Formats: sequence, structure tokens, C-alpha cells
Amino acid sequence: MMDRRLEQQLAFILEIDKEKNIFRQTSLSGHGRKENDAEHAWHMAVMAFLLREYANEEVDIARVMLMCLIHDIVEIDAGDTYAYDEENLKTQKAREAAARERIFSLLPDDQKVELTALFDEFEESRTAESRFAHTLDNLQPLLLNDSNDGGDWKEHGVSAETVYSRQRKTRLGSEKLFEVTDGIIQKHIKKGNLPV
Amino acid sequence: MMDRRLEQQLAFILEIDKEKNIFRQTSLSGHGRKENDAEHAWHMAVMAFLLREYANEEVDIARVMLMCLIHDIVEIDAGDTYAYDEENLKTQKAREAAARERIFSLLPDDQKVELTALFDEFEESRTAESRFAHTLDNLQPLLLNDSNDGGDWKEHGVSAETVYSRQRKTRLGSEKLFEVTDGIIQKHIKKGNLPV
Repeated sequence: MMDRRLEQQLAFILEIDKEKNIFRQTSLSGHGRKENDAEHAWHMAVMAFLLREYANEEVDIARVMLMCLIHDIVEIDAGDTYAYDEENLKTQKAREAAARERIFSLLPDDQKVELTALFDEFEESRTAESRFAHTLDNLQPLLLNDSNDGGDWKEHGVSAETVYSRQRKTRLGSEKLFEVTDGIIQKHIKKGNLPV
Repeated sequence: MMDRRLEQQLAFILEIDKEKNIFRQTSLSGHGRKENDAEHAWHMAVMAFLLREYANEEVDIARVMLMCLIHDIVEIDAGDTYAYDEENLKTQKAREAAARERIFSLLPDDQKVELTALFDEFEESRTAESRFAHTLDNLQPLLLNDSNDGGDWKEHGVSAETVYSRQRKTRLGSEKLFEVTDGIIQKHIKKGNLPV
């Protein structure tokens, strides 16, 4: 009754359920528990739609949303690499490349090609869609952290310089949302939550 | 620096973070913890894209994905109403209507109108997009439950008849995915996980 194609699609769908167990370093609002990748991706995709008017360039918003939804799937194998963890950042590329091959290969060939291309597009940041998706990838945890009085930065002893460096790509996707980012960072510097 | 419109958008974005704390009755694969609404919505949206070829009618897939992403936002106030909880089902409509008004009102007017319309479209099930979104809303927990040997049904003592009744709308969005659904239910009846 079920053909091979549909079986492959359902196998991939079941596999990515594991993304709900990959926890990030960002705490939920209300000083909550750590957020997982699936929740982060959901939040980014809704943000993409609501904030699309602020993208620097015209974007295909369905493409941005889909990119947001799948951009962390490789972390099922590779784990979450914290933005300020220098050691793990060194091996991140190799770990994620192996995961990308294994996980997208569960899909029928045409969909493997399609999703891998979209994943690569995000990684390479060369299109308007991927640049805007990166803006959201950076802004989403910043908003949560801001709501928690910068708790994630304080926990990891992160400096303002490191945060600005991490937020480099934010401006490339949206000048307007970088203004928001800058305003938040400056506020937390003034409050003493981010050492300069 | 930040105008009123952007402030409203960011307030809504922060508010919906709470959806990550609304837990459903479905367990994650691998006999995991209960799933929350944000994870469920993320999973549905990815499924929508991957399984779009099985929709009975042609659908605007970006619309379906967005509908999937926002369809449970009202549960931030109204809570999750388990599909087989007859008592809570009686008050569900009123609780969700109040939540819909409060939460979407955080947005600028045009986006309030836009998202409320999309939310209502899902609820009313009159368009091809909303019918397909309902198929995914039903199939997603079924796949997880199937992977867990029907554990969620066993926990709640649910009968095959009740499951079939709950899955009525699945066929309206996709005959093909209803075949999958039917196959899974029949398998669990044979295994004794679902009393007839």
C-alpha cells in the first residue's frame, strides 16, 4: 500500500523528531529552561513572516521560512555548537557535513537535492533569503536573552565585543533589525550585563 | 529609534515564546517526554512542505506552512485540549476565542487581521489549504504514537472507533495520507493496542 517514496519521506519525518532533543544555550522567556532547536526554528519561521518588511532586499518569504525550519537539522548528529564556544567551533563544519549527508539521504533523491541545496544556501549566506534567515537566527535568541535580563551572556561570561562579532551577519539581512540588535546590546552594556 | 509598529511585532513575537510551554498528550519518538505546541507546529510545517504532493487539491504551500505554524497559538491562554477529552472539548471554543482576540491584538492592525483570518481559515476547514493543514495536524501525532507502539492511546484507554472519528478530517485533505493513517490504525488494532 505504501510506496518506497512515501516510506522514505515518513522515515525522514520521524528522524527529524530528534531535533526536539537538541538543546541550545538560550533560555526561554520568563527565565525558563533551555530552548531546543525545533522550537528555535519554529520561532524564527514565524518571525520571518511577521518581519519580512524589514529585509534589506526583496525576499521569497516561503523560501526564508523553509530555510529557517530546516537550518539546524544537522545538529541531530552534530549537536548544538554554542556561538561563543571556540573549541567546538573548530570541528563544527566537519561534524555538520557528515550529518547533512546522512540525514538528507533518508529522503527520496529529488527532495534530498532540494533540501540539501536550501541548507547549503543558508550556510553560504549569498542570497537575500539566506541573509535574512541569518538575521532571524541571530535576533531570535537575542530577544529571549534580552527578556531574561541578559542571563545567557552572564552565565557564559560573554563580552560585548563577542556579541557584536556574532551579530555581524544581522546587518546584512536587515539594517532595521540590526538597529534593534544594537539598541539591545547597548542597553545591556549600560546595565552592566555585558562587559565592554 | 524603534517605532510603534516594530514594538508591537516584537511584543507578539516574545508573547508566543510561551507556546513552548504548552504541552500536548503526544510523546516524542523513542518513548520521550510529551511534545509541546511549538515543536508540533514546526514538525507539521516541515511535513506540509515534504508531503505537499499528496494534497487532494492544489495548495499554496506557503499558506499551509504558515497556518501550521500559528494554528495553536491560542493555546497559550486556552491550554491544550486533548482530542479525546470530552469535558474540556465543550468549553474549548469559548476559551480559544478569548485567547485569539487577546494574543493577535498585540500585533499591528493589518497583521492582526491577516493572522486572525489565517487562524479562522484553519478552524473553518473550508479551503484546500486548511484541509491539508488538518491532515498534517492529525498525521503528525499519529506518526509519533505509532513509533512508540501506540503508547499514547494505551495511556488514555482510547478505542479504535474514537481514533477513526478523530481522523475524519484527514481524508478531506489527502486520500493518500489517510491510507497511511488507516494502515497504522489497523496495525495497532491487530497488535491489541487499540480495542475495537
